[in-house]
Amino acid sequence: MMLTDGQFSDPDLAAIMGAPAQVAAMGRVEAALAQAQGRLGMIPLGAADRIAAVAGGFAPDPATLIAAAATAGIPAQAYVAALKKACDKDGAFAHYGATSQDIQDSALILQLRDALAVIEDRLTALDCELAARGDAFGAQPIPARTRFQIAAPTTLGAKIAVWRAPLLRHLARLAELRPRLLTLSLHGAAGTGAAFGADAAALRADVARQLGLASSDVPWHAARDTVAELAGWLSLVTGSLGKIGADLILLGQSEIGEISAGTGGGSSTMPQKSNPVAAEALVGIARLNAGGVGMIHGAMIHAQERDGSALAVEWQTLPDMVVRTGAGLRLALELARSLTPNPRRIARTFDADRGAMLAEAAGFYLARHMPRPDALRIVAEALRQVAANDADTLATALSRLQPGHDWAAILAPGRNTGKS
Amino acid sequence: MMLTDGQFSDPDLAAIMGAPAQVAAMGRVEAALAQAQGRLGMIPLGAADRIAAVAGGFAPDPATLIAAAATAGIPAQAYVAALKKACDKDGAFAHYGATSQDIQDSALILQLRDALAVIEDRLTALDCELAARGDAFGAQPIPARTRFQIAAPTTLGAKIAVWRAPLLRHLARLAELRPRLLTLSLHGAAGTGAAFGADAAALRADVARQLGLASSDVPWHAARDTVAELAGWLSLVTGSLGKIGADLILLGQSEIGEISAGTGGGSSTMPQKSNPVAAEALVGIARLNAGGVGMIHGAMIHAQERDGSALAVEWQTLPDMVVRTGAGLRLALELARSLTPNPRRIARTFDADRGAMLAEAAGFYLARHMPRPDALRIVAEALRQVAANDADTLATALSRLQPGHDWAAILAPGRNTGKS
Amino acid sequence: MMLTDGQFSDPDLAAIMGAPAQVAAMGRVEAALAQAQGRLGMIPLGAADRIAAVAGGFAPDPATLIAAAATAGIPAQAYVAALKKACDKDGAFAHYGATSQDIQDSALILQLRDALAVIEDRLTALDCELAARGDAFGAQPIPARTRFQIAAPTTLGAKIAVWRAPLLRHLARLAELRPRLLTLSLHGAAGTGAAFGADAAALRADVARQLGLASSDVPWHAARDTVAELAGWLSLVTGSLGKIGADLILLGQSEIGEISAGTGGGSSTMPQKSNPVAAEALVGIARLNAGGVGMIHGAMIHAQERDGSALAVEWQTLPDMVVRTGAGLRLALELARSLTPNPRRIARTFDADRGAMLAEAAGFYLARHMPRPDALRIVAEALRQVAANDADTLATALSRLQPGHDWAAILAPGRNTGKS
Amino acid sequence: MMLTDGQFSDPDLAAIMGAPAQVAAMGRVEAALAQAQGRLGMIPLGAADRIAAVAGGFAPDPATLIAAAATAGIPAQAYVAALKKACDKDGAFAHYGATSQDIQDSALILQLRDALAVIEDRLTALDCELAARGDAFGAQPIPARTRFQIAAPTTLGAKIAVWRAPLLRHLARLAELRPRLLTLSLHGAAGTGAAFGADAAALRADVARQLGLASSDVPWHAARDTVAELAGWLSLVTGSLGKIGADLILLGQSEIGEISAGTGGGSSTMPQKSNPVAAEALVGIARLNAGGVGMIHGAMIHAQERDGSALAVEWQTLPDMVVRTGAGLRLALELARSLTPNPRRIARTFDADRGAMLAEAAGFYLARHMPRPDALRIVAEALRQVAANDADTLATALSRLQPGHDWAAILAPGRNTGKS
Repeated sequence: MMLTDGQFSDPDLAAIMGAPAQVAAMGRVEAALAQAQGRLGMIPLGAADRIAAVAGGFAPDPATLIAAAATAGIPAQAYVAALKKACDKDGAFAHYGATSQDIQDSALILQLRDALAVIEDRLTALDCELAARGDAFGAQPIPARTRFQIAAPTTLGAKIAVWRAPLLRHLARLAELRPRLLTLSLHGAAGTGAAFGADAAALRADVARQLGLASSDVPWHAARDTVAELAGWLSLVTGSLGKIGADLILLGQSEIGEISAGTGGGSSTMPQKSNPVAAEALVGIARLNAGGVGMIHGAMIHAQERDGSALAVEWQTLPDMVVRTGAGLRLALELARSLTPNPRRIARTFDADRGAMLAEAAGFYLARHMPRPDALRIVAEALRQVAANDADTLATALSRLQPGHDWAAILAPGRNTGKS
Repeated sequence: MMLTDGQFSDPDLAAIMGAPAQVAAMGRVEAALAQAQGRLGMIPLGAADRIAAVAGGFAPDPATLIAAAATAGIPAQAYVAALKKACDKDGAFAHYGATSQDIQDSALILQLRDALAVIEDRLTALDCELAARGDAFGAQPIPARTRFQIAAPTTLGAKIAVWRAPLLRHLARLAELRPRLLTLSLHGAAGTGAAFGADAAALRADVARQLGLASSDVPWHAARDTVAELAGWLSLVTGSLGKIGADLILLGQSEIGEISAGTGGGSSTMPQKSNPVAAEALVGIARLNAGGVGMIHGAMIHAQERDGSALAVEWQTLPDMVVRTGAGLRLALELARSLTPNPRRIARTFDADRGAMLAEAAGFYLARHMPRPDALRIVAEALRQVAANDADTLATALSRLQPGHDWAAILAPGRNTGKS
Repeated sequence: MMLTDGQFSDPDLAAIMGAPAQVAAMGRVEAALAQAQGRLGMIPLGAADRIAAVAGGFAPDPATLIAAAATAGIPAQAYVAALKKACDKDGAFAHYGATSQDIQDSALILQLRDALAVIEDRLTALDCELAARGDAFGAQPIPARTRFQIAAPTTLGAKIAVWRAPLLRHLARLAELRPRLLTLSLHGAAGTGAAFGADAAALRADVARQLGLASSDVPWHAARDTVAELAGWLSLVTGSLGKIGADLILLGQSEIGEISAGTGGGSSTMPQKSNPVAAEALVGIARLNAGGVGMIHGAMIHAQERDGSALAVEWQTLPDMVVRTGAGLRLALELARSLTPNPRRIARTFDADRGAMLAEAAGFYLARHMPRPDALRIVAEALRQVAANDADTLATALSRLQPGHDWAAILAPGRNTGKS
Repeated sequence: MMLTDGQFSDPDLAAIMGAPAQVAAMGRVEAALAQAQGRLGMIPLGAADRIAAVAGGFAPDPATLIAAAATAGIPAQAYVAALKKACDKDGAFAHYGATSQDIQDSALILQLRDALAVIEDRLTALDCELAARGDAFGAQPIPARTRFQIAAPTTLGAKIAVWRAPLLRHLARLAELRPRLLTLSLHGAAGTGAAFGADAAALRADVARQLGLASSDVPWHAARDTVAELAGWLSLVTGSLGKIGADLILLGQSEIGEISAGTGGGSSTMPQKSNPVAAEALVGIARLNAGGVGMIHGAMIHAQERDGSALAVEWQTLPDMVVRTGAGLRLALELARSLTPNPRRIARTFDADRGAMLAEAAGFYLARHMPRPDALRIVAEALRQVAANDADTLATALSRLQPGHDWAAILAPGRNTGKS
C-alpha cells in the first residue's frame, strides 16, 4: 500500500494481478492438469479428482508461501509443495511431470487474460467517450501549437482524432498479440515433456482446452518474446495516454485554459489553483511504463532453459505495468468524460494572436491570385505592420495592402482548418 | 566512425539509415509531392517537373545542411530551404503546403521500408540456417540447464526450436506492423492539410501511390505509436538474438564446450583462448536496443501538434537501433552457419553427471511399477549412493536396488528427451 | 504483497519506506515546524504545542488518506488537511506558510536517512564478511575467466578484492552525498518562503536543527539532483552486488562448482539440483535498479516550480529501489557468510586445463632466457602438443622441448598469481 | 555523421572521444608502459625507446583496425597487434605483460580526463553566465507556476538560483569522483599482474605518474562502478540542463513569452514562429542521457574477470553521453547568454491574474490582524468576487471587504517574493 495508490494503482487490476489471484490461477492450472492426466491414465482417476477438488479452493497461508518461495526462488514451487501436502497421499500425483515454471507461467497467462479483458473494455470505452466529445465539440476551432508556439488553426475534432487513432491501432494490436500470448506452458523440467511420455501433446491439448488457452509444441519457458511484446503493448497504450495527458496539461495552463478536463486538485495554500492531477498522472504512468518496457525487453536475454535473474525482472515489473495501465485508462476515462472546451478562452487566444497564425493561409490564398513570391512578400509586410502595431490584425493590414478581398472572412479560423 | 563498428554497425543498414540516404529520401518525397500537385493543378506543371527533376538528384553540402538544421531544429527544414533555392524561381512551389515534419517523417518511412526489407531477409535467412542445423544435429542429446544447473536431457533440436519459434513470431509481427508503419505523412503545419485545399485527400492518395505507402486522414506528426511499435519490434528481434548469444556463450565456456559457433576472438596474451566475441556482441546489442526501446516509448509523450524534444529522442535513437539490429542479424547468421555440437564434450558432461540428471526420469519410470512415493524413495536412495560414491552411476545403483530392469537403456539420455 | 517478497523485499526497509512511516515522518516535520513557528512568534505558542502533540501520534485512516491524495495529487496535502481537522481550531496554524511539497520532501528525507543507516550498516557488514572470507580463503588459487574462457590463474583473494573495492568506494560516495541529500525542504508555495516573512531563514534553521537536517536558502522542490544522485548510488551498490551474483552463479554451475554460497533452491522435480537463487536475485535486483535510475534521472526534467508528472515517477520508483537495495544487501550477506571454495573442484579445473592457462606465464618465463619471439614459438609448439595429446600437460611438453627447468614447479598455479 | 549533429553533437567533445583520439591515447599508454618497463629492466631499453617513439605517432588505417577489432572483439587488441608489427623486432616487447583491456581502459581514462576538463569549463562558464543574468534581472518579479498553474509571485533571480544550485553541486561531485575515475588500468590478463613479476606495483606507479593518473592495486577490469558513476554524473548534469530547457520552453510559449533565450528556429511555413529549438534540445539530451545511464549501470553486472557483453554496452553508450553532455552545455551557454525577461509580458500575466496568485499572501497578511480562519474566509470571498467579476482585482475586492489597508501596495507582486 502506498499513499499514492488512489492515482497510480487500480483496485480491479490490482485484484487480478495480486497474490491471492495468482494462487487461485495456479490452482486452476494444477486442477486442469490433474483432470487431463486422470483422463489420459497418467495418474489414478481418484487422485485426479482429489487434486482438482483441493486445488480449486486452495489458499495456503501467504506468509508461509512467501518464506518458502524465498528459498525455492520461484513461488510456484512453494505452492506446489504446499498443494501436494494438502492432497495427502494423492499429492504424489499432483503437478505430475510438470515443472514449477509451467504452473507459474500458465497462471500468469490466466491472470493476464483477465487483465486484458478489463483493459480492452476501458480502451474501447475511452475511444467511445472521445468520439462522443468529438461529436459534441469537434467543429470548435482551436489553435494548433507546434514546438510550443501557436502555429495555425485546427479544430478540437482534429485534436481528438489524433488522440483516437492510436487507440484504435492498439485494439488491433491487442487482437494480434492475444493468441500469441494466451498460450499454455506445459513442457516439464527440461522443456521436453519427457515425463509426460507419448501422450504429452494430447495432455497439453486437453489442459489448454480446459483453460481456454492455445498450446504450442515448443516451450516458451526461455523464449519470453510474447511477454515482452505484451509489456511493449501496455507501454504503447500508456504512451498514447501520456500524450493526451501532456496536451491537457498544456491546454489547461492558467494562461491558456482552452480545455478543461477532470476536477482539478486544489492546493494546500493557494485556493485559486486547479491542478491537472489526473493529466499529470497520465504522463507519469507513461514514463513509468516506458521504463518498464526496457527492463522486460532486457529480460529476453534468458540463459539456457531457465534463468532466474531474467524471470525476476519480469516478476517485479510486469504486474505493476498492468496495474498502472489500468489506472491510466481509468483516469483517462474520467478526463474524457469531463472534457470541455472553453470557447471564450479560445477566442481570446485567437484575438491575442491578431491573425499571425493565419499568415500561412493568407500566403496560400494570395498565391492563387499572383506569383507566390509576391504573395509571400505581401504577407510578410502585413505581419510586420501587425508586429509594429501599425495594424491591429493581419486582416486589417492585408485589407490595406490588398483591398478588394474580404480578409476578415478569408482568415476566419473556422475557415482555415482543412478537413480536420 | 568507431573502432567497434565492425561488430556493432552494419554497412548495408548504415547506408540505408545514413545522412545521404535521408537526403535522397527527402528528395523522393518532395518530387512526388510536386508531381502530384502539378497533376492536381495546385502548382504549375512546369514548376512540378522542375522541382521533381532537381529533387531527384539533389545533394546539398552536408556541413551546410547540418549547420542550417541546427538553427532550424529539424533537418528537413534546412533541406527544403536549400531545395527551394536550387529550384530557383520554381522553388516557391516546392514543398507547397507541406510542413517540414511531413517530409522528414515520410523520408524516414522510405528509409525504414528499405531497412526492414534487409532485416526481414536476414531474419528469414537466420531461421533457415537454424532449421538446417536442426536437421543436421537435432537428434543430438545435450543436457538442459535450468538456473545454471544441469537439469535433465534435451536435444540440440529442442534448443534450436526454442531459438526459432520467436523468429517466426517476429516475422508475423512484422507483417502486422508494416502497413501501420509504412504510411505517408502529408498534413501540413497544423496537421489539417488546410493549405492543400479541397484536394488534400486526393493529393495524399497520389503521393502515397507514387511512394508505395499507405495514407491516412489523421496525421501522425504527434502520434508516434507506429514508430514506438517498430522500436519495440527491433528490440524483440535483438532480444531473441541475445538469448541465442547467451546460450552460445554459456555452452562454449571452457569447461563445457558442447557447442562451438563462430571463429572466436583470440587474446593478445593468451594463445589458447577462443573468445565468443560474436555471441557476446548479440547480448550487448540486445541490451542496447532494450534501452533504446524505453527511450522511444518515452518519446510518445508528445506535446500538442509537434514536440521537438520528443522528436529529438527518436532521431538520436532509432537509426542506431535499426543499424544494430542489422548487425546483430549478420552476426547471428555467421554463428548459425558455423554452429556445431561437440559430441565428445557432451558425452563427457553426461558421464560426469553419472546419471543424476535422469533422477526425474527414473522416478517416473518406477512410478509406473509401484506407488509413486515408493518410487521417489528408491530414486533418492540411488542418488545418495552415487553422491557417496557407493555407486558409479544412477543406473548402477538402481540395478542393485531394483534389479530386473535394463537401467542403462532406460536412463540413456537419448531415450529421455521426449518429443523434443 | 507479492509471493516473491521473501527475496525481493526486505522487512526493515519496507517498514522504513512504507505508508505508516511516511505519515509518521510528515508528523515529525509538521511538529517541528509548529514548534519553531511558536518560538519565533509566527503562530501562537498554544497552537504550536497542540499541533506538535497531535502530529506526533497522528495516524489517519489510510484508505481515507489514499482517496484524498488521489484528488489532491500529492499525499502530503491530504495528510495536512486531515491534520488541521484533527487539531480543531488550532489547525489553522498547522502547516503555516509551508507547501505540501515541503512536508512530503522533508518527510522523505527523514525516511531516507533511516534507510541509509540500515543500508550503510549492511554494506559495512558485507565488506567485513568478504574480508573475513578473503582472510580465510584468499590464497586459494582459482582460474580467472575472461570472456567466459579460462584465462590464467588468480586467487580467490583477488576475486574477493575486486568485489570489495567498489563497496569501499560506495561508502565513500555515501559520505559525500549524504549532506547534500539530507536537507530540509521548507520554502512555501512558490519557493520564496514569502509567507514566512522576515524570519524565513531562522525558521528553516530551527526546523532543520530539530530534525537533524541541513538547510538551504535555495529550494529543491524542482531541483531533484540530490534525489537522482541517491537513486544512482543505490544502483551503483546493487550493480556491484549484481557482479558478485553473476560471479557466484557462474562459479557455481554444475560443471564448475568451484565456489558455493547460500543454501541453494531445490527443484520441484529434480532432486539433485541446487539453484543459485540468492545470486540470481542479486542480478535481478541490479537490473531493476539500473532501470529505476534511468527513470528517476528522467524525472530531473522538472517543469517550473512543481511538476506532478516528474514527482510521480520518483514516488513510484524510489521507495522500491531503496527496499530492493536493502534486500540485495541482505542476500549478499547470506552469500558472503557461507561462501566456501571447493578445492577439489578447482583442482579438477586446473587438471582438465592441462596447463593451457599457464601458456602466458611460460612465455614470460622463457623470454627471460631467450629472445621473446623464440620463447613464444616454443610455447605455441608445446600447446600444440597438448592439444594433439602428444603431451598430457604443458609442463610435460615444455620439459621435452626445453629440458633443464623444473616446469611443474614453474607452472604451478599458485606460483603464477602475482600479488593478487 | 547525422544531419542533427549541429545540435546534438559537439565538435570539441566529438574530437576528444573519437577514434583517432582513442588511437592516440592507446599510443600514449603503450609508450608510457614501454618506457617504465625499460627503466625497470623488464624489457630492453632500446626496445622501450623504439616502442615509445613508434606508439607516439602511430596511426594505423582505421578500416583495417575496425576489421581486426571485429574479429578480436576489442579494439585495443587489434591496435596492439598493429603496433607490434610496426615496431618490427622490438614489437615482441610492446604491450609486455599487459592485457588489451588495460590499454583500452587507460586510454579511455585519458580521453575522459580531457573531456571532463572541457565539460567542467563549460559548466563553470554556464554558472557564471547565469549568475550574471541573475545580477542583471534577478529582482524582476515573475509568477511561479506549480503543476502548470500560476501559483504566487517569485523573482527571476529565484528561478535562476534554482537552476544554479545543482550546477554548483555537480562541480563538487566532479571533484569527488575524479580521483576515483582517473585511475590507470594495468593488471594483465587475469588481473594479477603476474607477468610483471615482483615489480608490478613499481611499474604501475611509474606509468601512472607519466600519465598523470592514480593507480590501484586492485584491478577495475570487471569493477565498473567508476565508469557507471561518471555516466550518472553526466546524466545529472544534463538532467539539470533539461530542467532549464523545460522552463525556457514553457516560459517562451506564445501565450506567455515572459523569457526569451536563444535565437529561435523559424518554421518552413509559418513566418511568425520562433521555435525554442535549443531549449527543446536540452530536454531531448536529458532524456537520452537518462536512458544511457540505465544502460551503463546495467553493465556493472560484469561476469568474472572480463565480460565482452557488458563492455560493449559501455563502448556504445558512454562516448555519446559525453559528447551529448558537451553539446547540451554549449546550447545552455548560448541560451544563458541571451536570456532576457520581457517585463511587458510579465506585467500582462500579473494583470490577467487580477491578484488571484496573491490570495495566499493576502491570507497571511490578514491573519496578522484577526483569527486565521476569519482571514481565510475573507480572502475566499474576495476571490469569489473577482471570479464573478464583481471586482476587477483582488485588491479592489479586499479594499471593499477590509478597508483601511493599502491593498494595492500589500499585494504588489514585488513585495511578495520573500528573500527569493
